[in-house]
Amino acid sequence: MRYILTAFRGYRILSHSSLKGLEFVPSISSQWSLFRRSYTTSVKGDQSVKNPRFKVTVVGSGNWGTTTAKIIAENTRLNPTLFQQQVNMWVFEEQIHGKRLTEIINTEHENIKYLPGVKLPSNIIAVADIVQAVKDSNILVFNLPHQFLPGVCAQLKGHIHPQARAISCLKGLEVTPDGCTLLCDSIAHGLNIPCGALSGANLAPEVAREKYSETTIAYKLPNDHFPGDVDRQTWKTLFHRPYFHVRVVSDVAGVSLGGALKNIVALAAGFVEGKGWGENAKAAIMRRGLIEMIRFGQLFYKDCDMATFTHESAGVADLITTCAGGRNVRVGAEMARSGRSAEAVEKELLNGQSAQGVLVTKEVYELLENKGLLNEFPLFEVTYQITFNGYPIDKLPSLFDRFD
Amino acid sequence: MRYILTAFRGYRILSHSSLKGLEFVPSISSQWSLFRRSYTTSVKGDQSVKNPRFKVTVVGSGNWGTTTAKIIAENTRLNPTLFQQQVNMWVFEEQIHGKRLTEIINTEHENIKYLPGVKLPSNIIAVADIVQAVKDSNILVFNLPHQFLPGVCAQLKGHIHPQARAISCLKGLEVTPDGCTLLCDSIAHGLNIPCGALSGANLAPEVAREKYSETTIAYKLPNDHFPGDVDRQTWKTLFHRPYFHVRVVSDVAGVSLGGALKNIVALAAGFVEGKGWGENAKAAIMRRGLIEMIRFGQLFYKDCDMATFTHESAGVADLITTCAGGRNVRVGAEMARSGRSAEAVEKELLNGQSAQGVLVTKEVYELLENKGLLNEFPLFEVTYQITFNGYPIDKLPSLFDRFD
Repeated sequence: MRYILTAFRGYRILSHSSLKGLEFVPSISSQWSLFRRSYTTSVKGDQSVKNPRFKVTVVGSGNWGTTTAKIIAENTRLNPTLFQQQVNMWVFEEQIHGKRLTEIINTEHENIKYLPGVKLPSNIIAVADIVQAVKDSNILVFNLPHQFLPGVCAQLKGHIHPQARAISCLKGLEVTPDGCTLLCDSIAHGLNIPCGALSGANLAPEVAREKYSETTIAYKLPNDHFPGDVDRQTWKTLFHRPYFHVRVVSDVAGVSLGGALKNIVALAAGFVEGKGWGENAKAAIMRRGLIEMIRFGQLFYKDCDMATFTHESAGVADLITTCAGGRNVRVGAEMARSGRSAEAVEKELLNGQSAQGVLVTKEVYELLENKGLLNEFPLFEVTYQITFNGYPIDKLPSLFDRFD
Repeated sequence: MRYILTAFRGYRILSHSSLKGLEFVPSISSQWSLFRRSYTTSVKGDQSVKNPRFKVTVVGSGNWGTTTAKIIAENTRLNPTLFQQQVNMWVFEEQIHGKRLTEIINTEHENIKYLPGVKLPSNIIAVADIVQAVKDSNILVFNLPHQFLPGVCAQLKGHIHPQARAISCLKGLEVTPDGCTLLCDSIAHGLNIPCGALSGANLAPEVAREKYSETTIAYKLPNDHFPGDVDRQTWKTLFHRPYFHVRVVSDVAGVSLGGALKNIVALAAGFVEGKGWGENAKAAIMRRGLIEMIRFGQLFYKDCDMATFTHESAGVADLITTCAGGRNVRVGAEMARSGRSAEAVEKELLNGQSAQGVLVTKEVYELLENKGLLNEFPLFEVTYQITFNGYPIDKLPSLFDRFD
């Protein structure tokens, strides 16, 4: 075996006699420590800064909300000069076996309802009162079901830190026949604060168990950005973990759309799976879906960057993970196998809840139809026709003829 | 349910009272018939054309070779004015139960050795003599194992039609520390004929059973292109089927590289699968792999188009299908589970044959090392280090830290 001259950057060769002696030196971590030190110094030296340390609240406590709180609480402990250690997590109060869920989380350090079996850092404090939960927090991480967002924003209005900055981990999109609004923009406008987006190939149970994954955070510095304010590096320090790799970009629209539109593709991938058409067909649907996601982004958001879909976790990787399984694929597959309607299948598989893919398929179809753009979105259209109009799945391939 | 004004192009609404009355009208097929008619007319009217009808030979008869012969033979029957119906298929002669394989194929219309259970069109003629097989054929489709290519080209030299045009369905790449050569270019130079490439998310057993899939054909018109010569439309007519959708592009390098480099990524995806790291991690590996495939293409082939990797079946879709299963994933997964070497695992799982991914990982590593480019290919490098130098798979995620 010949001698390797080129070593990984960040490696040192422990033993020249053995290639197995390559050892990784965490050079990035060192650079981060240096960065954090200089950052904190400059912040402290600047009298205009009111909050040298950030206080963080996670708004939401489902399995993904609790998982992000866990990540954040691990990082606030590791970075005490940048963040207050305590991380508030707003919990919609419920009684579990006669005990309050907040009490269980704060004493047993486990969200036994939504993330059972995962120990949480003790610096996560569950708070049932939403106004109390966000008090003095200048970093807000929104991670709750889409349908609760308007009510939560209404409750928060007037009660948040004047210089708060936010990230939305919500995957939805508000679509009407007239246009669409990113959920991070709903938060931004509703609360009059800057709000970015976090999305990626992030099945919550895997991230919660610290299996390796990646994510994408999109954030644009606001016009009133000030020294010591939250910036891209702050988000990275808050979210990056050895098992949760973060890339920060500026394309908020692309990151948000990826998380929403992938569910249409997953429903269609489910059709193919249910029909037993195999891996080639499933990959074909995903390829077409990716192209339509890009096209949608570029038509509705002029700054939307194609690379977000093709290069980032929030794009192609999330699409791959979502189409590998999950409730949208299951609904589509069961529709194909049984010939039953989406509604009937949702009733059986999801206790009557709607699969995100079914909702967004309908909303996006109505928007595209209203704008006269259906011709550019054959996959989105046929997914709608199959889901809502009983169009036969077997004819799906022939529809693509006109685009090949 | 409201009335839908926008119908699919190519649809007609059979019944206005029911949305289920949408019926697909195969408008493309009609356009194709028209095209073929006018094409044939102009060809016939042009006295410079020596071959108004093309004769096709498939060189190779493995499962993928036999499958492409089946597709082609279906299309030559449907397009008798463009193609001679008979399709020759070169078969490496073997004795099966005391009978010659060519005889079995020509009488039973089934390749019982390499594609059992799939009936073949009777206009496929198996020919054991390679020179006889290509005689008078002006379309050659190469679809045989990589290692047989040099010998076959040597045998064919001086025996092929002077205006023959070829497509390579081979997935490999010839890589040396000094550079790499596309297999279609090897064919083109070896035989002094133009040669394009066909690649896509095409698991042969699924295509053979007419399950829906897509493919990408790359072809550049040669300098000596003449009226009536093979063009992009000829390739589409020869390969496109209702179950096998063809897109024709001009990026021969991108299409060829996709089919070769994906196997490195599949090996790495196997590591993750074997470790049980889940769907997020697998998608992360695929995302990084896709980026390195693009980077490789752009560094070594200046005309290589990123969109081939991100938009075409030969790129992202083939990567998805390949990483869903197959021998490279299996080898990687078994290495991760058992801690054994690639060699030992290949011996057990593949009867000592090499997985394509193991070979190409080594060749690509040596090329990149020699060119000083390893820093730009962390996934390709670590896949090599794990496969050949016993680098621990558990450390794989930490290596990516320096790139996030």
